[in-house]
Amino acid sequence: MTDVTQEFKFLDGVKVVDFTQFEAGTTCTEVLAWFGAEVVKIENPGRGDPSRRLRPGKPDDDPWYFRQFNANKKSIAINLKSPKGLEIVKELLKKADITAENMAPGTIERLGLDYESVKKINPRILYCRVKGFAGGSPHEKGLAFDMIAQAAGGPISVTGWPDKPPVKPGLSFGDTGTGMLMAATILGALHERNRTGQGRLLEIAMQDAMVHYMRTCFATMMRTGKPAQRRGAKPSAGNNAPAGLFPAKGGGPNDYLYITTSRANPEHWTRLMKLIGREDLIEDPRFATGDVRVQNSEELDGIIGEWTSKHDKRDAMEKLIAIGVPAGAVFDTMELQNEPTFEARGFMQHVKHHNGEDKMATWPVRVDGKSVRLKGAPALGQHTEEVLGGWLGLAAADIAALRNDGVF
Amino acid sequence: MTDVTQEFKFLDGVKVVDFTQFEAGTTCTEVLAWFGAEVVKIENPGRGDPSRRLRPGKPDDDPWYFRQFNANKKSIAINLKSPKGLEIVKELLKKADITAENMAPGTIERLGLDYESVKKINPRILYCRVKGFAGGSPHEKGLAFDMIAQAAGGPISVTGWPDKPPVKPGLSFGDTGTGMLMAATILGALHERNRTGQGRLLEIAMQDAMVHYMRTCFATMMRTGKPAQRRGAKPSAGNNAPAGLFPAKGGGPNDYLYITTSRANPEHWTRLMKLIGREDLIEDPRFATGDVRVQNSEELDGIIGEWTSKHDKRDAMEKLIAIGVPAGAVFDTMELQNEPTFEARGFMQHVKHHNGEDKMATWPVRVDGKSVRLKGAPALGQHTEEVLGGWLGLAAADIAALRNDGVF
Repeated sequence: MTDVTQEFKFLDGVKVVDFTQFEAGTTCTEVLAWFGAEVVKIENPGRGDPSRRLRPGKPDDDPWYFRQFNANKKSIAINLKSPKGLEIVKELLKKADITAENMAPGTIERLGLDYESVKKINPRILYCRVKGFAGGSPHEKGLAFDMIAQAAGGPISVTGWPDKPPVKPGLSFGDTGTGMLMAATILGALHERNRTGQGRLLEIAMQDAMVHYMRTCFATMMRTGKPAQRRGAKPSAGNNAPAGLFPAKGGGPNDYLYITTSRANPEHWTRLMKLIGREDLIEDPRFATGDVRVQNSEELDGIIGEWTSKHDKRDAMEKLIAIGVPAGAVFDTMELQNEPTFEARGFMQHVKHHNGEDKMATWPVRVDGKSVRLKGAPALGQHTEEVLGGWLGLAAADIAALRNDGVF
Repeated sequence: MTDVTQEFKFLDGVKVVDFTQFEAGTTCTEVLAWFGAEVVKIENPGRGDPSRRLRPGKPDDDPWYFRQFNANKKSIAINLKSPKGLEIVKELLKKADITAENMAPGTIERLGLDYESVKKINPRILYCRVKGFAGGSPHEKGLAFDMIAQAAGGPISVTGWPDKPPVKPGLSFGDTGTGMLMAATILGALHERNRTGQGRLLEIAMQDAMVHYMRTCFATMMRTGKPAQRRGAKPSAGNNAPAGLFPAKGGGPNDYLYITTSRANPEHWTRLMKLIGREDLIEDPRFATGDVRVQNSEELDGIIGEWTSKHDKRDAMEKLIAIGVPAGAVFDTMELQNEPTFEARGFMQHVKHHNGEDKMATWPVRVDGKSVRLKGAPALGQHTEEVLGGWLGLAAADIAALRNDGVF
């Protein structure tokens, strides 16, 4: 059997000093690790990245949440409040190409590791900051979590039913979505840095990142003159029908199917009507044009729903795909976790961590048909000796002495 | 006044032949353009990128939707079905570092511009494909739009109210979210290509991209043993309170405020109770620990809502930020469009296109305190002469003759 995974070597030799925690920052540096950079997490010896311990008061257990966002990284546990510990981290920063942090506003400054200080010791470094709100924003001191970004950056305003309070999109793209934009910027800026030798300060606000993902809703606002509305399961633009979620056989919470037809391709409409045995409606004056289909969409949805509710969501999806109508069953996390082709083609892999084995998703872009090979997330401090030896040439005895002094 | 914008030169000299359309592909290549690459859209002389014309039957008008996703790019209008047109595009591909497409499955192959063919004429090229479903998926022939990806990749399953049908997250991160992952991969792979001279095939499926953004929901499933649920406006993990949307004064559709308190920081809880004048509840047995706050969250939400409903959402947000409690008002697209500090710090810019002027958002990462300067989106075929002259050395007379032959 051919191996469908491989190590990516895009960033061979690139060194990253990683102060990130939780998700917006860790997802960013994980991309660098997956692309072959040596990413070293700098963690507090007591508790480490707080996402190692999502159950306060209980022992560290490095849950799935932590493992998923820290695969392929290394970990040093070092006390940044000891002068010796801080000095060692500064030595690491001197050797680094990239550093990243997403701490609360003011924290990195209090450690003396702000951009101006780090730039003095390493003018070649790309220094990356993720914050909730940008400098210059009235909210710049605000703490940010995924849901705060999704509120203040727009996503919540467009999600839910019209005339009802909004809901939060259930996934955390406030975090991961921000991390991806910073990852792309680092990878871009590194091209320039390699050419010019000149470091840069890269800063992203989670609120701004959300606006970036909201641009189709801004387009809708520009067309209608009103703020983009909530439209339930309908597409946000609101100028296309039939399009929406339809009930499938089974009656479970996710037994639904998304079907859409594009105005740009009138064939979608005729193919759909033929499939459900309603050729009679193709030229029916209630439905014959895109405009009247939008006007009469409720009636039309009922007709299509009669057909979909007699079919299993996967069967209906395959029937629609076979005739060239865009369709997607609503899959939940368990169905996706158990989707056999994810594993067969290397998108989901079994990976061993120090505390167990998971089947989890890797980077979703395939290169020459192969996916990034997952390596386990590190135990807290697992690579202290390896990295201090490799980057700084510290001998085992030096490290042991420092450990006695409480630096690690 | 200092200019808060700048041209980014990360990709100085990098050439991109861009076959993308609509959103998942165009957002990807726009990042390359913003980072300084020369990105040339290859468009059909008749109608161009279909997103130039979202009102079929009406004249092209290059709406906001098109302009937002194609800023800083160039456009060639060329007939790929004429042998001469195809030959010219192949000459452009020979000079390119990167090419990208997100057409329906099979389309690029029918044009004879599939990876194997392009690799033969340019083995150094990074060839990028965006599809709805991956090769090897049972759905690999499926057409994809944003909402299909959000159904089949999980986001819809976790969005909405429990015990109700799901809703679609209102924004199009099925498209833009996919584009960003491909952009990061291109920028990473280019480092390797610059070192090795060896091109690569990069492929992403929108379904897989959605799984990438769903990972926190997978973590919740791993903790609970059940598929991640819909939780209305509550955070997806479900193990933290108080956290959620609270009504603000005004009663408008977006007069809401997200407040969250982190278990990892018990101060959030005490600060919040002090602010709303309910110190008495801090040690109340119904609310004294994280666990009981989760159990009694409905009662607690009512108490907090009494306070928030007396305050404007912005005032409440600022009061909460001032005492160090994570909070975000729900802003709609109009409020964000009119947020003055977005413009003051260069995140939103006035940009002239051939057919008008907009105030729109640029790339959200600031570099050394400055944002990417926006240039207008191109008119269809605006740069045909410029690019064919610059890349291939074609003279004006050659181009005129080809135009007579119907190539452009």
